[in-house]
Amino acid sequence: MASFAPVASERVKNHKPSIWVEFTTLAAECQAVNLGQGFPDSPAPKFVTDILKNISEHPELPACHQYTRGYGHPQLVGILAKMYSSLYGVNVNANDEILVTVGAYLALYYTILGWVNKGDEVLIIEPAYDCYYPQVKMAGGVPVPIVMSLPQDATSASQFTIDFDAMEKKINSKTKMLIINNPHNPTGKLFTREELEKLADIAKRHNLLVIADEVYEFHVWQKEDMIRFASLPGMYERTISIGSAGKAFSVTGWKLGWAVGPKNLLEPLKAIHQNCVFTCSTPTQKGIAEAFEADWPKFLSDPQNSYLATGLSSELKAKRDKLAKMLTDGNFRPIIPDAGYFMLADYSHLKTGQELKGHEDPADFIFSRWLCREKKLAVIPPTAFYSEPEMKNKNDHLVRLCYFKKDETLEAAEKILKELGHH
Amino acid sequence: MASFAPVASERVKNHKPSIWVEFTTLAAECQAVNLGQGFPDSPAPKFVTDILKNISEHPELPACHQYTRGYGHPQLVGILAKMYSSLYGVNVNANDEILVTVGAYLALYYTILGWVNKGDEVLIIEPAYDCYYPQVKMAGGVPVPIVMSLPQDATSASQFTIDFDAMEKKINSKTKMLIINNPHNPTGKLFTREELEKLADIAKRHNLLVIADEVYEFHVWQKEDMIRFASLPGMYERTISIGSAGKAFSVTGWKLGWAVGPKNLLEPLKAIHQNCVFTCSTPTQKGIAEAFEADWPKFLSDPQNSYLATGLSSELKAKRDKLAKMLTDGNFRPIIPDAGYFMLADYSHLKTGQELKGHEDPADFIFSRWLCREKKLAVIPPTAFYSEPEMKNKNDHLVRLCYFKKDETLEAAEKILKELGHH
Repeated sequence: MASFAPVASERVKNHKPSIWVEFTTLAAECQAVNLGQGFPDSPAPKFVTDILKNISEHPELPACHQYTRGYGHPQLVGILAKMYSSLYGVNVNANDEILVTVGAYLALYYTILGWVNKGDEVLIIEPAYDCYYPQVKMAGGVPVPIVMSLPQDATSASQFTIDFDAMEKKINSKTKMLIINNPHNPTGKLFTREELEKLADIAKRHNLLVIADEVYEFHVWQKEDMIRFASLPGMYERTISIGSAGKAFSVTGWKLGWAVGPKNLLEPLKAIHQNCVFTCSTPTQKGIAEAFEADWPKFLSDPQNSYLATGLSSELKAKRDKLAKMLTDGNFRPIIPDAGYFMLADYSHLKTGQELKGHEDPADFIFSRWLCREKKLAVIPPTAFYSEPEMKNKNDHLVRLCYFKKDETLEAAEKILKELGHH
Repeated sequence: MASFAPVASERVKNHKPSIWVEFTTLAAECQAVNLGQGFPDSPAPKFVTDILKNISEHPELPACHQYTRGYGHPQLVGILAKMYSSLYGVNVNANDEILVTVGAYLALYYTILGWVNKGDEVLIIEPAYDCYYPQVKMAGGVPVPIVMSLPQDATSASQFTIDFDAMEKKINSKTKMLIINNPHNPTGKLFTREELEKLADIAKRHNLLVIADEVYEFHVWQKEDMIRFASLPGMYERTISIGSAGKAFSVTGWKLGWAVGPKNLLEPLKAIHQNCVFTCSTPTQKGIAEAFEADWPKFLSDPQNSYLATGLSSELKAKRDKLAKMLTDGNFRPIIPDAGYFMLADYSHLKTGQELKGHEDPADFIFSRWLCREKKLAVIPPTAFYSEPEMKNKNDHLVRLCYFKKDETLEAAEKILKELGHH
C-alpha cells in the first residue's frame, strides 16, 4: 500500500504567509503597544453596537438569525443602493448592482478571481495593500507595479505622485485591469480629481476594467474631498467599487463589505460567491443596514450630527495630529496623511535601532522587529507593499503606523517614542 | 477605440445559477408556506442570542468587535479543540488543526479548491448536496457519482444503500478524494458504523483524502448514534471534518463553520483563506464559543439539560413525526429520516399535480413548481442532487421537505396537505 502523501492543488503551490501573520504574532508575543494592524482599539460607536443588541433581542425573527438573500440582505442592499446612487450620481439597482461580501477582502478576491485569467496583466499602484499580489497570482494573472515617487524630504502624503507617461508605457494588449486604492493604504494619500481624471482617461483609452478599492471613503477630513472613481464621467460602466462596513463604522470584526458596479461586471463575482460563501452573516448585515439608515439622512442634510460625515473624521484627525507630534518628538519624520487611518514616518534620523541593517531582509523589516522586541512598539514595515527588490531598497526608511487607537494606547506609544527621541 | 466588452475568467465560464436561486425566489414570489430551504423558522435558542446581546453591550472590547485571529477566534478554536478531541478520540490542536470559516460552505470550498487539481477525480455519494459538483468543477476536478439505491416502496432513509463493489470499480489512479455527508442531506440517512467502516477500508486501500461533511452531527435522536468518520481507526490522518455553528445552534444566519484535521491537511485551506476572507466575524465567533462553552459540559455529563445532546433533537423529532403524519394524510408517502432536518416523500400517489410531466425538466421540478404556484407550498425537487440524467429520471417521484419549522408554519402546511389528500 502506498503511503498517504496527497499533493495540494497548483493554485496554493507558491503560497507564502502574509506579513500580518509575522507582525501580528510578534506584537502579541512581545506584548507590545500595537500601532501595527489597521483596526481601531477605541470603542466601536455605541449606536452601532446597540443596533446589534436590539437584533439579538429577537431570536424569533428569521430575518435576524437565519439565512438571508445570498447576494445581500434586502435591507442592506436597499440602503447601499440609495447611498451610492447619490454618491456616484448614477442609478444603482439594489438587486443587480450590489454584492455583499465578507469584508472588502472577499470582494477583492471575487473581482480578481472572476475577471483575471491566465496571463492577464493587472496594474497595481505601489506601494500597494499586500493582498492584491497573491490574489492576482492565484488567478493566474501578472501584477504590473506602477510605483509612485516621493521626494526624500517629503512631509505630506500628497507628495506621492504617479508618473502617468511611465505608467502608460507599461500597458499592452494583455493589460486588463487597474486597481486604484483611494484613500490610499499605506500612504494615507487622497487622490485629487485631476489625478483620478488622468487615470480615467488611461482606463478609457486602453479599455481597462477598474477596481476602485475605496474602503476608507468616509475617512476624509471633509466629505467633499472624496472623489469616488465611479462618479467620474463614463467610469461607472467599467468600475467595480469596493466598500467596507467594518471601516465605515469602525467595527472591523464584523467583516462586511460589498462590490458595487453594473450588473454585467458583477456576474462573475456572483458566480464565485455561489460556490464560496453563498450568503453572508444575517445579524451583522441587518445591523449595518440600520446603522446606514440612521446615519445617511444626517450625512446629507445634518453632517454635524453624522458619524460618517463628521464624527469619524473629527476623532481621526485629532488622533492623526497627536501621533504626528509624538513621532516628531521621537525624532521620526512623519509624512502627514490626507485621509485614512495610517501614517508613514521616516525612522532613519533616529540614533538607535539602525545598527542591524544589511541583513537579507529589507531594513524596515529589521527595524520594525527591533522596535517591537526591544522597545515594545509594533509597527508595519512598508516595503511589504512593494513588489520589486529595487523599490524595496529605495523605500526601506519608513514605517507604517495606525493612529486609530484609544488614548491609552497612544499615550503608551508616546512614552516609548519620547524615550527613543532622547537617544 | 475598441468597445468595452471584457471577458470573464475561465473559472466562471460554465456557471449555472443554483437551485436555491430559483426555488427561494419562487417561494417568496408566491408567498408560499416554505418547507424548502433548510433553515429553522422557529426561534433561535435564547441562550445563544442572549450571548450575542451581551457581546453587543461591550463596544469598548476589540476582542468583540475588531479583527480577530485569522484562522479562528482563540476562544472558539479553544473549545472546538476540546470538543473534537473528545468526539474523535484524538488530540486536536487548537492552533494548528482547526480553521474557522464563513459557514461549512466555505470550508468545503477551501478543501476542494485547496486539494483538487485539474483532472483529479472526486467520489460523491448521490443524491448529494448540490454545492459539491460546482466546487469540484471550479477546481478543475471531475465529480464521480456513487449512487445509493432505494427500494421503490421504501419507508425509511436507512434503506438508502451504497453498492460498495460498484463503488470500488469507479476508483482509478486519478481518484483523489471521497466526500461523505453524514447525517445525509437530502435523504436524512445516518450512516451505520458498518457502512462507515467499509468506506474507511476503501479510503485506506486507495489512499483517498476524505471530506467528512458532518454539519448535522448534533441532529441525531441519540447522541451515541452519530459515528464521526475521523473517530474510526486511522481515519483522522486522512480526513478533513467539516462542522457548522449555524446548524448546531439553529442560527444559520450567523454563517460560521469550521474544518478540523491534521495540520498538513489544513495548510492548503489556510493558504486560500489568506487570500479570500482572511478572518471571520468576531462577535458571532465569540458568541458561538461561549455557547459551546456553556453547553459542552452538560453534553458530557448532564445531557438532559444540554441543547446539543437533547434540546435540539427532542424539538426536531417531534417536528419530524408531525410532518410524517401530515404527509401521510396528504397522500404522500414519507421516507422517515434517521437524523438531520430534511425528509423525502413520494408524491406519485397524489391524484393531482401529475399532469404536467413529460416536459424537459425532471418531473419533480415540474411538480415542485406547481405545488408552490398553485398550492402555495414550497419544497425542493431532489433530482437537483443527482448528476446523471438516468438517475434523475429514476428518482423524480420525490420531494424534499425541511421540517425544522415553527408550529404555525407546519400547521399552515398541514392545511394545504390535507386538501391535497382529499383530491
